[in-house]
Amino acid sequence: MYPTYGYAARDAQSPLAPFEFQRRDLRELDVRIDVQFCGVCHSDLHQARNEWRNTMFPVVPGHEIVGRVAEVGTGVTRYKVGDLVGVGCLVDSCRTCGSCEEGLEQYCENGFVGTYNGNDRVSGDVTYGGYSTQLVVDEAFVLRVPENLDAAAAAPLLCAGITTYSPLRTWGAGPGKKVGIVGLGGLGHMGVKIAHAMGAHVVLFTTSPSKIEDGKRLGADEVVISKDPEQMAKHANSFDLIVNTVAAQHDLNPFIELLKRDGTLTLVGAPEHDHPSPQVFNLIMKRRRLAGSLIGGIAQTQEMLDFCGKHGITSDVEMIKMQDINDAYERMLKSDVKYRFVIDIDTLRK
Amino acid sequence: MYPTYGYAARDAQSPLAPFEFQRRDLRELDVRIDVQFCGVCHSDLHQARNEWRNTMFPVVPGHEIVGRVAEVGTGVTRYKVGDLVGVGCLVDSCRTCGSCEEGLEQYCENGFVGTYNGNDRVSGDVTYGGYSTQLVVDEAFVLRVPENLDAAAAAPLLCAGITTYSPLRTWGAGPGKKVGIVGLGGLGHMGVKIAHAMGAHVVLFTTSPSKIEDGKRLGADEVVISKDPEQMAKHANSFDLIVNTVAAQHDLNPFIELLKRDGTLTLVGAPEHDHPSPQVFNLIMKRRRLAGSLIGGIAQTQEMLDFCGKHGITSDVEMIKMQDINDAYERMLKSDVKYRFVIDIDTLRK
Repeated sequence: MYPTYGYAARDAQSPLAPFEFQRRDLRELDVRIDVQFCGVCHSDLHQARNEWRNTMFPVVPGHEIVGRVAEVGTGVTRYKVGDLVGVGCLVDSCRTCGSCEEGLEQYCENGFVGTYNGNDRVSGDVTYGGYSTQLVVDEAFVLRVPENLDAAAAAPLLCAGITTYSPLRTWGAGPGKKVGIVGLGGLGHMGVKIAHAMGAHVVLFTTSPSKIEDGKRLGADEVVISKDPEQMAKHANSFDLIVNTVAAQHDLNPFIELLKRDGTLTLVGAPEHDHPSPQVFNLIMKRRRLAGSLIGGIAQTQEMLDFCGKHGITSDVEMIKMQDINDAYERMLKSDVKYRFVIDIDTLRK
Repeated sequence: MYPTYGYAARDAQSPLAPFEFQRRDLRELDVRIDVQFCGVCHSDLHQARNEWRNTMFPVVPGHEIVGRVAEVGTGVTRYKVGDLVGVGCLVDSCRTCGSCEEGLEQYCENGFVGTYNGNDRVSGDVTYGGYSTQLVVDEAFVLRVPENLDAAAAAPLLCAGITTYSPLRTWGAGPGKKVGIVGLGGLGHMGVKIAHAMGAHVVLFTTSPSKIEDGKRLGADEVVISKDPEQMAKHANSFDLIVNTVAAQHDLNPFIELLKRDGTLTLVGAPEHDHPSPQVFNLIMKRRRLAGSLIGGIAQTQEMLDFCGKHGITSDVEMIKMQDINDAYERMLKSDVKYRFVIDIDTLRK
């Protein structure tokens, strides 16, 4: 067993605080990773505060993890000590259902094992995430991080990156396609960068005029203030795909109306309370589609990392110490971050 | 000009009554059709009563039309006098936009011309539908009806048939696919027959236990009472496609939950008041899709008619006299029809 230092929430009301625990002895195919950086995802906060009402306390959040391989099990063939690797939202799945066989482990029909707040399939133990000094994960769920990327800024690719990359690929973003990204936060800013690198014409939708300049810097060809009906009307019936990263409850119709025939509005954030009902007429009259998309499978996550390596894409990040996580949560709630907090895990080691 | 006898609603409150009008002189590519039969679609009633608030009175409804060619314009090449033909919901479109060029005239970006309550693109005159003794239509919007089909029972194929055939084709119904049809009415009973003929495993969803036997007779492999959560739960995560023909407001979530990963729930009926909001979580967790679909293009409508000819598929109909249309509307409102009223247009000629 490996003594490990992390930060955990003990219950839904308390701030995160230091927590010491053991990582399991290596199984044959396990990789032990010295965590260097961990991104801060809004899910971490939801889970720490039990807002999805399924948290098993204590919870050690974190699923945007980058580090170096420190040790490998006897059967490991894909990684060696020193490799720069990542771990995202999944650390295991049933590996036998149709979705797993297609490499879509995020849709595992028997339920994937989350990087934290999951249950290990062998021992049943609750999984602990990346707000910790080390991690033990089966090599099948470990990703290779391109060495040319800044390791800290690459961490958010493991959730924010793949969550936007996957729908852009599923619905064919690329040259000649007009793609919208709704919201310029952790997910949205990755969506803009990735869709731009894919060669699509990218339109960012934001409610904040203050974000216009930043949107263009990040790769948006156009920025539309979504509260302005006149600006919105100019884009009616013109989008192949809109990826909506906004998890707060809002009216979807103004975006559905911007889709061309057969266009898709894909939701990647689940609001606490469902969005108002979309107008059926808006769907029928142009055979439009409303869909959802959940992170991405392991193979596609690797594809995304390689794509980001090739195009030099990382997240815009603000580094924090582990000790500042509770302040970071408060700032995240106010959207006061450009565009992702990343924890320097070395601050846990001192 | 051709003196024509029909039935029209003069305003939203009055019953339909006899109405005499002129059909236009034949243009070069026009076909004059002696109408034999016209199906009664729920849209006819909506439009006659101005429930969509866009009716131009007087309105002569009817867009499930079958008859014989009586005369052709000088440039007509596709049809000759005596041919058994049909006209559906469209009699023209811009013919130049992207959708028209792809043969998807129902999604014409400049607006298709409806068979009734439309405006002729040349004269601007309001179009009058199939509750009438004859029709003049450009040959490009005339369909060939297979001679082996009963002409009266084939009439509903022109709207109810294509409205269900089109989404079944768009989303790939066929052998190895599990397809649901929600509602056993005019549209639903066609959906069951067509999906069965396509080779899919067909499950009919109905709220009426009295319809189980009929559903199976029509081609359903299984019939599920959608109000029974236990029966519904047995089909969780198992459907490739569900075509929802119910236009009354209802909760879509119980059907979305039955879709497998990447499955689609397609709505073909627009309710007067939108359905309650679907749960975003239900879409995200299995990359499910909610979509709409509108009738079908001319090429696909011909494909559907040929398919029905090959498989001997027509609608189950109840024949009425033109003079009984107002009673038929009342019965239709009570779903008291198995499964489509068809008007014998000869009753207008006596």
